[in-house]
Amino acid sequence: MQFFYTPDTCALASLICLIEAEAPFELCRIDFASEQQKSEAYLRINPKARVPALKVGSEVLTETPAILAYIAQAFPEAALAPSDALAFAQVQAFNSYLCSTLHVAHAHRMRGYRWADDHSAIEAMKAKVPQSVAACYTYIEQAVFEGPFVFGDAFTIADPYLFTIAQWMESDGVDPAGFPKLAAHRDRLRQRPSVVRALQEETT
Amino acid sequence: MQFFYTPDTCALASLICLIEAEAPFELCRIDFASEQQKSEAYLRINPKARVPALKVGSEVLTETPAILAYIAQAFPEAALAPSDALAFAQVQAFNSYLCSTLHVAHAHRMRGYRWADDHSAIEAMKAKVPQSVAACYTYIEQAVFEGPFVFGDAFTIADPYLFTIAQWMESDGVDPAGFPKLAAHRDRLRQRPSVVRALQEETT
Ligand SMILES: N[C@@H](CCC(=O)N[C@@H](CS)C(=O)NCC(=O)O)C(=O)O
Ligand SMILES: N[C@@H](CCC(=O)N[C@@H](CS)C(=O)NCC(=O)O)C(=O)O
Repeated sequence: MQFFYTPDTCALASLICLIEAEAPFELCRIDFASEQQKSEAYLRINPKARVPALKVGSEVLTETPAILAYIAQAFPEAALAPSDALAFAQVQAFNSYLCSTLHVAHAHRMRGYRWADDHSAIEAMKAKVPQSVAACYTYIEQAVFEGPFVFGDAFTIADPYLFTIAQWMESDGVDPAGFPKLAAHRDRLRQRPSVVRALQEETT
Repeated sequence: MQFFYTPDTCALASLICLIEAEAPFELCRIDFASEQQKSEAYLRINPKARVPALKVGSEVLTETPAILAYIAQAFPEAALAPSDALAFAQVQAFNSYLCSTLHVAHAHRMRGYRWADDHSAIEAMKAKVPQSVAACYTYIEQAVFEGPFVFGDAFTIADPYLFTIAQWMESDGVDPAGFPKLAAHRDRLRQRPSVVRALQEETT
């Protein structure tokens, strides 16, 4: 497998899970500074011009929730997701929320041009990020998070995904002190060997 | 099971799949006109104040991609998704893209207040919807859609989801004539018994 990523992006979640699963893979770094995600070579891999992408044989898999679920199912020994259909669906529901609501709220800080052309509209989007992102964390802290992991005692593919996005709290203008369970989760994950190694591999 | 929906929303995709699967369920309509999605009673079901939600025993499942995958896995006789892990992940990747990118682009037309407070910013978001939504359809038409269904000969949970969102093409300011494969798919789905019945049940 080949894993296409950029440091400090949502790709970190999949990288942590690949390491957790002890999956054999090659790391392929895509450089945003030179807009390599829009290069012809990368568009042949992912025409959406985004990371992450996971090449499996001749197929390319994109979208964090799908990549995470695939790793869990392809490496069942790692026990990264429950096997019961409803419990698995709850993990997918959480990851889908991160992808479609929390990550999207965050993206309005740096990528507002996706949704408006006007400079002042882009500034207005930036201004609301602390509020819209905090609303997502409030929902997670109060209605979802069980502890010590998202779904209780077992580490699942939900944990590295939440960790990855929660790394952006401060830059999104959200004070982690307002979310004690999530802040403790983030600290706990930072100590985890797979996370330590993923953060090292990202930057070397 | 109880299925919470509102007509003319993304909930249609799950409703079609419940009918395809011949699942036993009760339909519970949530009225947006009276903001019933924000009522105390509904917030106890889905604190996110959105539809769809599927109550399964004592658990509530949300997020279209998770509900669709759950229906496919809980009713395997309906063959609504491939069982091979990589093929299943590709279906999830497509549905995740619909949820996090296409549906989100569309939502900037009516729900811009989620991401900015300023009236003129909200108007600027509306103005870009035809372009950002069309870009998603271009990607799907050119890089994903196999035909006659999204993933070739087999109808999967990807089809009713694409159909549901593609119903909004005209109101999003996108001309279906620009996307001949997707327009034909929409016409084909409109004839399908489960879709005909779902559209009827929604409105009665
Ligand atoms: N829904 C996708 C979103 C992927 C995404 O937006 N990735 C960002 C990095 S976090 C990206 O590649 N941005 C590059 C760009 O916008 O040019 C997923 O969850 O994988
Ligand atoms: N990511 C969620 C999105 C759900 C969603 O946004 N539903 C809309 C209808 S399409 C809704 O309930 N809107 C009510 C509101 O915004 O007040 C999913 O895919 O199920």
